[in-house]
Order: sequence, then C-alpha cells, then structure tokens
Amino acid sequence: MPDETQSPETKLALDRIIFFSDAVFAIAITLLALELRVPEMPVDQVAAQMPLQLVAMRPKFVSFILSFMIIGFYWAAHHRDFQYIKRYDQRLIWMNLLLLMFVAFLPFPTAMLGNYPAQQFTVTLYAGCLAVMGFVRALLWWYASRNYRLIDRTLDPRRIALLNRRGLIVPLLFLLSIVVALFNPLVAMWSWGLVGLTFALR
Amino acid sequence: MPDETQSPETKLALDRIIFFSDAVFAIAITLLALELRVPEMPVDQVAAQMPLQLVAMRPKFVSFILSFMIIGFYWAAHHRDFQYIKRYDQRLIWMNLLLLMFVAFLPFPTAMLGNYPAQQFTVTLYAGCLAVMGFVRALLWWYASRNYRLIDRTLDPRRIALLNRRGLIVPLLFLLSIVVALFNPLVAMWSWGLVGLTFALR
Amino acid sequence: MPDETQSPETKLALDRIIFFSDAVFAIAITLLALELRVPEMPVDQVAAQMPLQLVAMRPKFVSFILSFMIIGFYWAAHHRDFQYIKRYDQRLIWMNLLLLMFVAFLPFPTAMLGNYPAQQFTVTLYAGCLAVMGFVRALLWWYASRNYRLIDRTLDPRRIALLNRRGLIVPLLFLLSIVVALFNPLVAMWSWGLVGLTFALR
Amino acid sequence: MPDETQSPETKLALDRIIFFSDAVFAIAITLLALELRVPEMPVDQVAAQMPLQLVAMRPKFVSFILSFMIIGFYWAAHHRDFQYIKRYDQRLIWMNLLLLMFVAFLPFPTAMLGNYPAQQFTVTLYAGCLAVMGFVRALLWWYASRNYRLIDRTLDPRRIALLNRRGLIVPLLFLLSIVVALFNPLVAMWSWGLVGLTFALR
Repeated sequence: MPDETQSPETKLALDRIIFFSDAVFAIAITLLALELRVPEMPVDQVAAQMPLQLVAMRPKFVSFILSFMIIGFYWAAHHRDFQYIKRYDQRLIWMNLLLLMFVAFLPFPTAMLGNYPAQQFTVTLYAGCLAVMGFVRALLWWYASRNYRLIDRTLDPRRIALLNRRGLIVPLLFLLSIVVALFNPLVAMWSWGLVGLTFALR
Repeated sequence: MPDETQSPETKLALDRIIFFSDAVFAIAITLLALELRVPEMPVDQVAAQMPLQLVAMRPKFVSFILSFMIIGFYWAAHHRDFQYIKRYDQRLIWMNLLLLMFVAFLPFPTAMLGNYPAQQFTVTLYAGCLAVMGFVRALLWWYASRNYRLIDRTLDPRRIALLNRRGLIVPLLFLLSIVVALFNPLVAMWSWGLVGLTFALR
Repeated sequence: MPDETQSPETKLALDRIIFFSDAVFAIAITLLALELRVPEMPVDQVAAQMPLQLVAMRPKFVSFILSFMIIGFYWAAHHRDFQYIKRYDQRLIWMNLLLLMFVAFLPFPTAMLGNYPAQQFTVTLYAGCLAVMGFVRALLWWYASRNYRLIDRTLDPRRIALLNRRGLIVPLLFLLSIVVALFNPLVAMWSWGLVGLTFALR
Repeated sequence: MPDETQSPETKLALDRIIFFSDAVFAIAITLLALELRVPEMPVDQVAAQMPLQLVAMRPKFVSFILSFMIIGFYWAAHHRDFQYIKRYDQRLIWMNLLLLMFVAFLPFPTAMLGNYPAQQFTVTLYAGCLAVMGFVRALLWWYASRNYRLIDRTLDPRRIALLNRRGLIVPLLFLLSIVVALFNPLVAMWSWGLVGLTFALR
C-alpha cells in the first residue's frame, strides 16, 4: 500500500520519470525537422527553381507543423496529468514507456504523410497511431487515478471523472477520422487541423 | 485570476515548461552540426584534396557558426524572459510551443544558406524565419507582462517597457536585412554577423 | 573517506550525473526510430504496395520495439540503483560513462538485427552487447554498494546482496541466449521477448 | 558588482545554464554513434562477410570510443568547474556557448578521423579542435575565478591556481600531439589513448 505522504526520495524518483519523458518528447518533436531536406539544384537555378520546389514540398511542411502541434498537445497533456500524480509503481513506469514509444515512433507516420499526402493508407496509419497513443495516455491516467492509487488524495472525484472522459475525446476523434478517410483522406486531414485549432484556442 | 503567490505546484509545472524548452533549444543547436558531412575521396588524396574541400565547404561552416550563435542568443533571451515569468496559462504554453517550432525548424534555412550561400532567395528565407521567430518571442513577452499577467509583480514598469522595446530590435534588424538582400545578399549576411558581435560583446 | 551526510553541493553534483545519464538514455531511445525509413515508390502504388512493404519491414519494427523496451528496462534499473547512491567519486563517473557508451552504441546492433534478422552473427552481436552492458551496470552497483562506499548507509545488507545477485540475472540470460543462437537464432530472439515480458508484467 | 550571497533566482538561472550545457554534451556524445552505419550485403553473405567488414570498420569504432571518452572527460571537467561557480554574467554565458559550439562540432572531426585514420591532416584537425576546446574551457575558468568574480568566495586561492594550471595540461598535450603527427600520425593517436587512460585511472 503506498504511503499517504510523499517522501523526498519518491519526489526525486518521480521527477526523474517526468524529466526522462520531457526529454523524449523534446527529442521526438525536434527530430521531425530532419525530414525537411534541402532540394538539390545548380546554384544558378536557385532563384527560379527553389520557390517552386518549396511549394512542391508543401505536404512535408504541413505534416511537420501538424506533428509538432500534436506532440506539443500530448506533452502539455502529460504535463497536466503528472501534476496530480504523486507516487509511482513499476506498472506506471512501463505504461509511461509505452506512451513514449509512440512519441518516439511518430516521426515515421509523419514522414509517410509528408511523402504520400492525402492517401487513404498513410492518413489511416497516422490517425491510427495517434488514436492508440491517446488511448495509452487515457489508460495511464485511469490506472493512476483509480481509487486514488497514485494521485493527489485531495483531488475532487468529479474532476478525476472529467479528466477520464476528456482524455478519450482526442483518440476517439482520430478513430472517427479513419472512417472519414475511407471516403475522403483530404477531409480527414483537415479535420485534425480543426480539432487542433479548437484545443489551442480554447 | 491568477494568484499573487507562486505555489510549489505552479513552480514545478513552470520548471517543466522551461526544461522542455531548454531541451528543444539544446537539440536544435546540436543537430546543426549534422549538416557538416565529411567529403568522400580516396585515402591517398586526403593530404592534397581535403584542405581544398574544407575551404570549399566554407559556407556550411559559416552558417553552422551563425545559426549556433543565433539559437544561443534566443536561448539566452528565453532564459532572461523566464526569470521574470512566475505563472503560466495554456496560451503561454502554446505561444512557447510556437517559438520552439521555429527553433526546431531553423536547421532547414541554415542548410539552405550553407548549400546556396549569398543567394537572394536563401538569405531572405533565413532572415524571414529569424524575424518571425523574434516577433513570436516579443509577443510571448508582451502577453506575459501585460498588466503583470504572468510575471513577477515587483518588476519595475519601466523595465517591462524597456524589455518590450528591446525584444523588437533583433527581429526588425532581420526584416531590414531582407531589404538589404534585395540589393546585395552578401552584405545582408555580413550585417547579421555584425549584429551578433555587437550583442555578444555588449 | 566520504562524509556520513550528504551536503547540498554533493546532491547537486550527483543530480547532474543522473540528469546527464537520463538525457543520454532518452536520446538513444528516441534515435532508434531514425532507422525506420519510409519506403519510396510512385504515389499511385501506395495503396497496393505500401502494406506489403511495411510487412517486409517487420524485422525493423520488431528490433525498434525490442531495443526501446531494453533501453527502457536499463533506464528503470539505473533509476532504481541511483535512488540509493548518495555520494560519488571519479571512478563512479567513469563507470557510468562506460555504461552510457553502451547505451549510445545500442542503435548499431539494433540496426544490424533489423537489417539481417535471425542471423547467428547479428543475434550474437546484439546479445553480446546487452550482456556486457548488464555486467557494467552490475559492476557499477557492486562498486557503489561495497562497504556502503557511496550508497545510503541505512540500506539493509540483505537487500544490497539481493540487488547484487539480481543485477546479474539479465546479462547471464543474454549470455545464455548466445548459446541458444548457435543452434537456432530465431529461438534466441524470442527468448529475449519472453524475458522482457516477464520483467514488465512482474 | 555581484552579490556576496546567491539568491534563489540566481541559482535557478545558473541551473538552467548548467542544464542546457548538460543537454548539449549528452546529445553530442550520443550523436557520435550515428556515424556507425551497418554495412550492406546480401543476407546469405552475412555469416562470411560481416565479421570482416566490422574489422575493416575498426577506425570508426576506435574514433567513436575515443570521442565518447573525450566528451565524457570534458563533461566531467565542466561538472567540476561549475560546482564552484555561483554567479554568472552575460560574458560567462557566451564563453560557455563557445565551448558548447566545439562540443557540438566534435562529431565532424571524429567522422574525419574514422573515415581517414592515421592521416596527418585528419589527426592534426582532430587534435587542433580538442586543443582549442580545452583552451576555451581554461579561459572560462580563468574568467570566472579571477578575483573570485563568479565563484564560491571560500575557495582556497591555491586550489584556484592549481585548477588554472591543470586546465592547461590537456590542451597543451593535444597541441604537442600535432607536432608528433608531423612525424607519425599513428603514434599521435595512440598518445591520446594513453593520456585518456591516465586520467580515467587516476
């Protein structure tokens, strides 16, 4: 049975978990830019050709911005969740590692989307990864908050229930966008942007 | 309405934002070196050819040093700004993510400049990115300091006003250098070095 | 002779060692995904060809997941060990750097395994690296805990002995899997997954 | 004039500088492994060809280990120096950024050495970079310790003088190895290993 109070040792150990997670989020979000390769051409054609080439690279820029914002969103969510988590156990560590594995993996579906945009397959893969990532995060919070197992014991039960429900919204929207992609992959992609904007401007 | 005092929870949460930002700055600044590729040649020609090849790579070294110093400058500025920021809200998190997106993106215009130096297009792109990055940083500070929304309440109003004005100098100089680049891209590039040196030796 | 108590300076210096280690673990674990390259093909063949190509890339995904979990496991072990370490000396710093060198090196045997799966040579190389890495970690703990040299002086001697023994299990299992690989490399690979699952679900 | 005491704000700001430096060291040290590329060959030739290929890659492994240990050494030195540094100014920030620029740059001379080992040119370039890096570090410590400008005011003056002298040993040895490389580049390389071992086993 975990202690009611948080010892300094527990705090440091929990800080290391948070820190390690932050580092993985930060590396994955920065590595996204590695997919943006400079087009090669003779120097004397840069003035004429480069603007056209960058316009042709549009899907790569869009998927960079999109994934940057999505990893940023999940980082901010992780940040919010762990403000209430006060203890940890080995299962929490492994659920967190599973979440981080999806974060580290995200550059792959991002590159797929940047190379082959508005394709049903790549859109479905991307949305599927983000849906699973969202469900892992929701599972982690459900596990930590269940019977106040690992969270702050003063947290209002209604707020816990609210956070449990809210954590399911984003993965469900990504699942829904897979259905949309069956009919029109481009509309599915735009729907992510709309969702993102809604959350950012909230 | 935010509290007058900073609770330990707020402090930890704010520390994570700063930490995450530092990690993104550190990764972006270190990834700049990935553009420096070793020239390939037969081993017996290294002595004769390598010095010439490295001289030919000069623009890549210059853009590495330039971008390292510029990211370093923006990191130091972020460091200064966040010494006064004592609270946060979701909007600050998203403005900060926007700033970090430009930081993570910077290796791309840097590689453009290293591959096609002294070209009007690449110089304009580079200066444009840095100008926008500077304006995002100025916006973040203006947002945080407005009516002491998120900053230390003991900070002198004249100092806040000074920091607001000073934050606009660098992006305005980069905008100005775009005008210079219309006439002479090389002079525009040298002007950045001069500005950098002025700030470093201040 | 080290002090009985831990001064604030020692704590900060120790925190930096832990922090630096966390960063190396986080970077190595995230760089694993760089090996996952998007297959190139004409856009109109994505629907028909991409699913087959991803199935053919299966060994790369398996070795990504495997190495992610193994680095995660060693990070969690490092996390547990350093909760008891309260002081440091130059030898501990160098043993820790040696451990981190294997962590940073792991993407190489991972890529070997992903490119040439179920080959006796690559399976042996991978298992060998992980065995040595495990022994370095066991050595570090033995060095730190010997006569309470650098660890918490209140730790139960039986627990220290247990941790010393337990630290040898994983490297010995990896050594054993090299013997298995002489007969069947595929069985050796599956044995790692079983071991991992046992530890994760414990 | 800096304050005699260290305010909590100064401490946090100094922690961010240390943290940012640690992150750059950790990223540079881990990126060294990116130069280790898996040799490509048909699967049925792995058993026969791979061991030979890895033996042929020997210089790349040696330069990986060498640079890992050297960055590790400079990180440990940075770690020691900053235990005594209690305040900072803008000049210290820029000297530290200059040091970090050499740290981030090191993968380039490392790759040069790995691709063209025992060549006078690459050995000289490598030793030259490390000598300059060592002098920058010595300059930083001299600047910080001069008249107790930024360091702990209780530090023994003889220890400061000792640290000033000791900081020059490693860069001077690297300078000396350039002279050795004029006669025999291989002996120069071995001399670095000997120096490293001496420091590690001290």
